[in-house]
Amino acid sequence: MFRSFLLAPANRLDLLAKFARAAADCSVIDLEDGTPPADKEAARASLPAAVAAVRDGGYRGLLTVRVNEPSAPGYLEDLAAAFACDIDGVVIPKLEEPGPLWPAHHHIARLRTQFPERSARFVIGGIESVRGVQNAAAVCRPDLGVRAAYFGAEDFAASMAGRRTRKGAEVHAARSLVVMAARAADIAAIDQVVVDIRDSELFVADAGEGLDLGYDGKTCVTPGQVKLAHQVFSPSPDERDFARRLIAAYEAALARNVGVIEFEGKMVDGPLLKRARAIVATPLS
Amino acid sequence: MFRSFLLAPANRLDLLAKFARAAADCSVIDLEDGTPPADKEAARASLPAAVAAVRDGGYRGLLTVRVNEPSAPGYLEDLAAAFACDIDGVVIPKLEEPGPLWPAHHHIARLRTQFPERSARFVIGGIESVRGVQNAAAVCRPDLGVRAAYFGAEDFAASMAGRRTRKGAEVHAARSLVVMAARAADIAAIDQVVVDIRDSELFVADAGEGLDLGYDGKTCVTPGQVKLAHQVFSPSPDERDFARRLIAAYEAALARNVGVIEFEGKMVDGPLLKRARAIVATPLS
Amino acid sequence: MFRSFLLAPANRLDLLAKFARAAADCSVIDLEDGTPPADKEAARASLPAAVAAVRDGGYRGLLTVRVNEPSAPGYLEDLAAAFACDIDGVVIPKLEEPGPLWPAHHHIARLRTQFPERSARFVIGGIESVRGVQNAAAVCRPDLGVRAAYFGAEDFAASMAGRRTRKGAEVHAARSLVVMAARAADIAAIDQVVVDIRDSELFVADAGEGLDLGYDGKTCVTPGQVKLAHQVFSPSPDERDFARRLIAAYEAALARNVGVIEFEGKMVDGPLLKRARAIVATPLS
Repeated sequence: MFRSFLLAPANRLDLLAKFARAAADCSVIDLEDGTPPADKEAARASLPAAVAAVRDGGYRGLLTVRVNEPSAPGYLEDLAAAFACDIDGVVIPKLEEPGPLWPAHHHIARLRTQFPERSARFVIGGIESVRGVQNAAAVCRPDLGVRAAYFGAEDFAASMAGRRTRKGAEVHAARSLVVMAARAADIAAIDQVVVDIRDSELFVADAGEGLDLGYDGKTCVTPGQVKLAHQVFSPSPDERDFARRLIAAYEAALARNVGVIEFEGKMVDGPLLKRARAIVATPLS
Repeated sequence: MFRSFLLAPANRLDLLAKFARAAADCSVIDLEDGTPPADKEAARASLPAAVAAVRDGGYRGLLTVRVNEPSAPGYLEDLAAAFACDIDGVVIPKLEEPGPLWPAHHHIARLRTQFPERSARFVIGGIESVRGVQNAAAVCRPDLGVRAAYFGAEDFAASMAGRRTRKGAEVHAARSLVVMAARAADIAAIDQVVVDIRDSELFVADAGEGLDLGYDGKTCVTPGQVKLAHQVFSPSPDERDFARRLIAAYEAALARNVGVIEFEGKMVDGPLLKRARAIVATPLS
Repeated sequence: MFRSFLLAPANRLDLLAKFARAAADCSVIDLEDGTPPADKEAARASLPAAVAAVRDGGYRGLLTVRVNEPSAPGYLEDLAAAFACDIDGVVIPKLEEPGPLWPAHHHIARLRTQFPERSARFVIGGIESVRGVQNAAAVCRPDLGVRAAYFGAEDFAASMAGRRTRKGAEVHAARSLVVMAARAADIAAIDQVVVDIRDSELFVADAGEGLDLGYDGKTCVTPGQVKLAHQVFSPSPDERDFARRLIAAYEAALARNVGVIEFEGKMVDGPLLKRARAIVATPLS
């Protein structure tokens, strides 16, 4: 489950302390953009304490660490420090090729041998540059431990020297290509951030578009966004009800050897039925 | 001509009987999604009777059979049964790679040898999954008999675990990539279905977008949609008139050695002229 | 700088004479679509005179010649004639593969040897067909002298047999893919033309979308469009002011070891900061 993917800087214990209450499906201790360059070494050194504080604070979701980008000098040290902690996975930003996944893959293989009783650690890959988008299929590698990919629209737009707008037409093609690459690889897809943190309406609209596209959830930068993301990425009672009625009508038709029906104004056959079944199967949030 | 591509389930003789009156450019006897699983064997066995009934009913357009998807156990039997009938071609849904085109290609080659006086049979390929869209260029293979491709937005969205909306932004990138792949291969492209079968306004708007993108026609699920598709995908008298005036103005300019003109507020050179000529060359519907 | 890319037919000395006053960043003497077929030979023969007239007229920007498309019989003669003139580069339309770049590359290498003190000549490639868009990455070749690519929406739509609209959804995917290919190759990207030459509002809106996507400038067909392009593709005083304030706030935060800040309602870290710095670094127009 990746309905919400909440980031907080590794050097901000005050913000990490909010993970438990925010209760995101996946929380991220961020060594990358969130931590200022002068603090990166110290933040890495205090990672075990930060992880322990989050766990002790009662956070029950997936806990991950975002390392610095693969081209950063401390990349391997970040990975080693992160995998030495009690985390579920690492987040690797600005992926543009599969190479940087290999050291993470080796850490994961070693931990799987050491702690065979625990769930395997995983990687969430950041696709957030023009080359990342072009090579999205090449970095969505479940065989190298990648279980989800997130689309970083702000960084992507920066790599394009473009300008972000509320409507977001400028990132629509890239946002579509990333979720397609994730789906083709059968991994989860996490949608772009909304930086306007006081604008719930924009967040809900943007998350709705992400849901339409096939994203599983949304990058969040405040606990308030987590709550909104859970609303959008969980089927509403009305949707569940519609889905149940559609399935019932379709099954009644099948019993009469009819494979295409009109249901509340829509022609229904395989695909709409498939979505209805997925909605009914989603656990209540 | 593929302005309209009308589907009806193979097990519904009552709906197949409407092909003659609906007069779609291409009609499809559907063994796939339209026919319920329990009826598929029987529908295949009665295909010759169904085809004969449609022909005897006076249908004059292209008649095809949609077989089950390549991964279905009955795929080869479906192809054999379809090519044994008096049809113009087969529709292969959910194409994701060129492999499944080969058996169809061999049937077509055999029939071309047996009946050299008849038009060659053809294949219409369905691109309606994330892998299909990603590999669209690989399945648009005129050398293997593919003469058209259709974009199946409902199935595509289901493969994305996405949600369809009226505006359709969620399938815009895929819809664009499919028509581009078809055009690059110089085959026809058939646009997505509109499942809201009572909503003519939506159908016309959606078909207009398809026309803008370069699609040749539209998948239809009711005779009423066929009529609307023919309206949208045939140039209107106003468009013909505008095109004729533009060509005349341009030719007059050429006679004065002028290659770029302003015509009714638009700068006109090669590309606009090319479209005007295509409009004038389209036969009246 | 390619904020504006102004085309005028090679056989229209009256229009070429306007280059100096229009003061586009890059001006193009067009042997291709702008010059009628019957005049192409004569236009090529008088190219030296045309170039000299533009230079003598006081034009100070980048001066280029658009040759006929690579498949045209006169392609090599066009290149030879253009590179024999005092120009900055050539524009090669309808690029679909890297092959046709090689003869231009050889001309450029020869001129670099002959005139080592002069700036290297360059190529601007036109991506304006479905195959061009599909192969965009393959033709954005800075190692073969390509310094910029333009997206030709009218020709692209003609190659799709599509229909252009004011909103332009039908070319959105292609327009996005072209600017992505250019950015990935680290070359400039020039946005589509607006053929409605009396409609400034449409031009400004369309240019704004191009800027959002990451384009550096716009194809222009009138001096009036050049002026509008310079407005859109230069940061406004407000944008500069916002950028300066954002940078100051961010640097103050860094001094307190804070790497993510809220600034005027937006969560700000690396990417937004990067854009702000780019805006401040842009010279005043």
